[in-house]
This record gives sequence, C-alpha cells and structure tokens, in this order.
Amino acid sequence: MDHTAVQQLLVSRVERGIDALLPAATEPSARLHEAMRYAMQAGGKRLRPVLVLAAARLLGAEESPDPLPAAVAVECVHAYSLVHDDLPCMDNDDLRRGRPTAHRAFDEATALLAGDALLSRAFAIIAEAYSQRPALAIALVGELAGAAGSRRLVGGQMEDLIAEKSGTAKPEDLRFIHLNKTAAMIEASLTMGGLCAGATDAAVDTLREAGRELGLAFQIVDDILDATSDTATLGKTAGKDARAGKATYVSVHGIDAARSLARERSDSAVAALRRLPGDTAFLVSLAEGLLGRSH
Amino acid sequence: MDHTAVQQLLVSRVERGIDALLPAATEPSARLHEAMRYAMQAGGKRLRPVLVLAAARLLGAEESPDPLPAAVAVECVHAYSLVHDDLPCMDNDDLRRGRPTAHRAFDEATALLAGDALLSRAFAIIAEAYSQRPALAIALVGELAGAAGSRRLVGGQMEDLIAEKSGTAKPEDLRFIHLNKTAAMIEASLTMGGLCAGATDAAVDTLREAGRELGLAFQIVDDILDATSDTATLGKTAGKDARAGKATYVSVHGIDAARSLARERSDSAVAALRRLPGDTAFLVSLAEGLLGRSH
Repeated sequence: MDHTAVQQLLVSRVERGIDALLPAATEPSARLHEAMRYAMQAGGKRLRPVLVLAAARLLGAEESPDPLPAAVAVECVHAYSLVHDDLPCMDNDDLRRGRPTAHRAFDEATALLAGDALLSRAFAIIAEAYSQRPALAIALVGELAGAAGSRRLVGGQMEDLIAEKSGTAKPEDLRFIHLNKTAAMIEASLTMGGLCAGATDAAVDTLREAGRELGLAFQIVDDILDATSDTATLGKTAGKDARAGKATYVSVHGIDAARSLARERSDSAVAALRRLPGDTAFLVSLAEGLLGRSH
Repeated sequence: MDHTAVQQLLVSRVERGIDALLPAATEPSARLHEAMRYAMQAGGKRLRPVLVLAAARLLGAEESPDPLPAAVAVECVHAYSLVHDDLPCMDNDDLRRGRPTAHRAFDEATALLAGDALLSRAFAIIAEAYSQRPALAIALVGELAGAAGSRRLVGGQMEDLIAEKSGTAKPEDLRFIHLNKTAAMIEASLTMGGLCAGATDAAVDTLREAGRELGLAFQIVDDILDATSDTATLGKTAGKDARAGKATYVSVHGIDAARSLARERSDSAVAALRRLPGDTAFLVSLAEGLLGRSH
C-alpha cells in the first residue's frame, strides 16, 4: 500500500474508534455528549492517533493488544486542549478546522465542561480497554497523564500565554513552550504506540526522540503557516500570532531561519525513525508530509 | 482515639500528601504550579481524601499499599472541579472557603489551566504511586475517571446549569444532578479506599452504596445551608442558589422535607457502613457529623 492508502486506512480506523468509544449523543447529559462529539468530530488530519497506530504497527502490534483505544485516548486529550485553548479567556478563537469553535457552537460553560469530560474520558478509555493488561494500561496512563500535565502540555500553554502578555520571549522560552505545548503530545503518541507493541526500552526512547523532533518541526511549520497563509486555507484564523504579539519561531528567528529550523527538526525526526526496526517508510513519509503541509 | 483525633490525623496525612505529590511552586511553569497549589491549599474538611483513608483503614490497608496517593488524587479532581465551577462562565463566584477563588487570585486563563493540570495530575499520581501494583492502579484509574467523567461529575454539572437556566427542574432532574455532581466523587472516595485495601467485591459494593447515600445527604445539607446560613459562616457566597433560581432540595421540596430527606439519606449511609466488617465507628461518626455541619 502507498502512503495515502495507509493514511486513509488509519484515519478511518481512528474515526470508527472515536465513534465507538465516546458516549452516545443521546445519553444523559445529552448536551454534554453532543458537545464532546462535536469537539471530536472536527476531523482534521488525526495526526496524533495516526502516529499511535503507525508506531504500534511498525513495532508489531496491529491487533492484540489493539492500539486503537490508546489512539482515541490521545485524540480526546488533544481535542480537550483545543476546546479550552479556543475559549475567550485563552485564545478567544471563533474558528477551528473551518467550523465554529465549541464555545461558539454551544456556549462557554458547555465547551469548558466538554473539554473537562474529554480529558477524563481519555483515561477511562484506557482503563476499560486494557483492563486485562494492567501493566500496559498503567504505562499508557502514566505516559498520557505526564504529557497532558503541568510539566508538559498545560505548562507549555501557561508559558505561551505569559510570553504573549509580556512580549519578551527569548529563544529558550520559545523552546520550553513548544517542547511542551506541542511536542509533548506527539512524543506521547509515538511512545504509546510503542508501548502497545511491547517495544524494547531502547525503541521506546527512539520513538520519544523522533516524537520530540517531529513535534518541534510541526510547531515551527504551524508558526510559518500562521504568518504566511490565509484563514480559508488553514481552517482557523490566520495571522493571529502576529496580532497577539505571540512569541513564535517566525517572530523570534525570522521566516528564513524558521524554515531551515523546521527542516533540521524534521531531518532529525526522520533519522531517529530510520534507526527503528521494520518498515519505517510510512512514518518517514508522514514526517516529510508534515514539513510540506499547507494547513 | 476519639473521632476528632482520628480526623486530625487523617487530615494532616492528607495535607502532607498534597504537599509531597504536587510539583513544587518553583518548578516551571511556576505560575501554573502556584495556582495548582493555591487551589489545593484551600484547606477545608478534606472530606473526600479522608473518606479514602478511612475506608482503606477500615478494611485493613493503612500502610501497604499506601492509600494516600489515591486520596490525594481524589482531592486533585475535587479541587479541579471547584476551580472550574467557580469560573465566570459557570457559577462566577469570588469566594471559596473564605478566600478569593482561583480566577480572582490569579486570572481566568491561569485558573482554567490549573484546573486542567490538576485533573491530569490525579491520574499521573496514581500511575506513579501504584506502578508496582498495576491491577490496583488501573482499577483506581477506572473508578476515578468514571466518577469524574461525563456520565457522573461533569454530566451532573452540565444538567445543573441547564436546570438553572430553564428554572423547571423536576425532582428526578434534581436526583440526576446530585447523584452525579456530588455523590459520584464521594462514592469513588470510599470505593477507592476499599480497592486499596483489597476489599471483596461485596464490601466494595457496600462502600459504593454508603458513598451514594452519604453524597446525597451531603448535597441536601449543602442546599439547606445555602438557604439558611450566611457567607461568613460558609466561607463561600450564601443564598446564591435562590438568586440564581437554582434547582435545590430546598426549592423543589421545601426546607422541612429537605431536612428529613437529609436525615433519611444519612441513616441509609450509616446502615450501609454498619454492614461492613471492622470498627466502623469513625466513618459512622463522620457521616453523622456531616448531617449536623454548619459549613
């Protein structure tokens, strides 16, 4: 199968997994469950859960233990973080993947609660799906809770807001922000796939390294796109980093340096992936694709 | 030891556990970690973690496995839910346990993120503390994630907001709200204590039943206090349920019926506790104390 076919296969598995593992929209509280599904059905590239599935597949676990619940759990955490990030007290954004953000489609309180519930749901999914493999289950919970926690994802968001307000972010602040705000969840995705496959500690470390580099490349490209693309192409508000005075790779390093930094990070990610056993073509091609993406 | 001495002992264990299991306030992001600690250091009765410790103690686990991390995890979830509940888009409250709420002491974005981070931290604490007992760890994660999730805690909060807006809550709506908004976490507290002690399924079921009844009694008393007490005594804004047109046991059933419903629920909780093996005096006395509390 070529890259696109594998990608489509994995994305459709993720979509089915999401549908199966979220409470029905009719179950009480119906409004809350509708909002959770709305936040999760925004589509998009499904980058993180696809990375979980691709890493598990690379290292030998496609069916048992099924990495799909872990992949859906990662997407729940990602979706929660976007819903909260879009709230008026945070980025105050109206548009996400070409649709109204959750608090615009519902209301602020519902969006807040839907985000909260998606975060808890992520851990419930892991506990339920891997209850017969408790050691794997708790390793997945530890990995995901660490990536989502105050030392990584949320810490990165907090420092991002502080840097935006102060307008004086230094390159090392930017590195802290992006290592945590973006790279943490991409690292966790590859790592959790490896854990599902029972990968060796060395392979898990390599996946983590690849995830970190890929995550940094991804964020630099995000910064470049925000500065150079338009809202219709992005499906989210373009140019808002500059308007908000946000610290980005473009504002700190300039557009040309940002482009070469993205290339460096992406090359490092590919080099790490190539050190893994098995057919890494899909993951390598996915990493290359992220560098050249337009949204 | 008498009730008060046991209570003080357990509360001081909880306080030490909180201090030990939260990231230092100096660790980056410092502002986020300060806000997390602020939200957790509000003191209060520490009802939920004390219930975890008391149930574990009753059923034989005081030291190994140590129920304290599970207790702190429960308190993290409780604190997160209060921080988010107090936000302007929710109850918009300025006062909690006699101090400014987190978004007043910091700002809205910081409070939102601190709540988010406390929720993830709860699961990280369990994964770290019980990694050598993965079956226990994953049972605790499942219990806590279920209680905190969209079908329980968050679902109850969502329906509470809907009932407040519509102003037409029926007794069965009120039951859904309180079973989930309040009783779920109290059930989970007793249940998680029992799980730490390796209690039989029958004992865990009894703990769950006791927790449900105790949780309902607790919420009815909360409703009565909101209607009859003052802000200084409560340490949070009094009378706000009536002003907000909130559905409460007092507004739906009247104050006298609410008082006898609280007594009934409390009696049921005590009856369930008495069915458990061992010395239930402390838990029974704690349940009785909740009925007569003034804040």
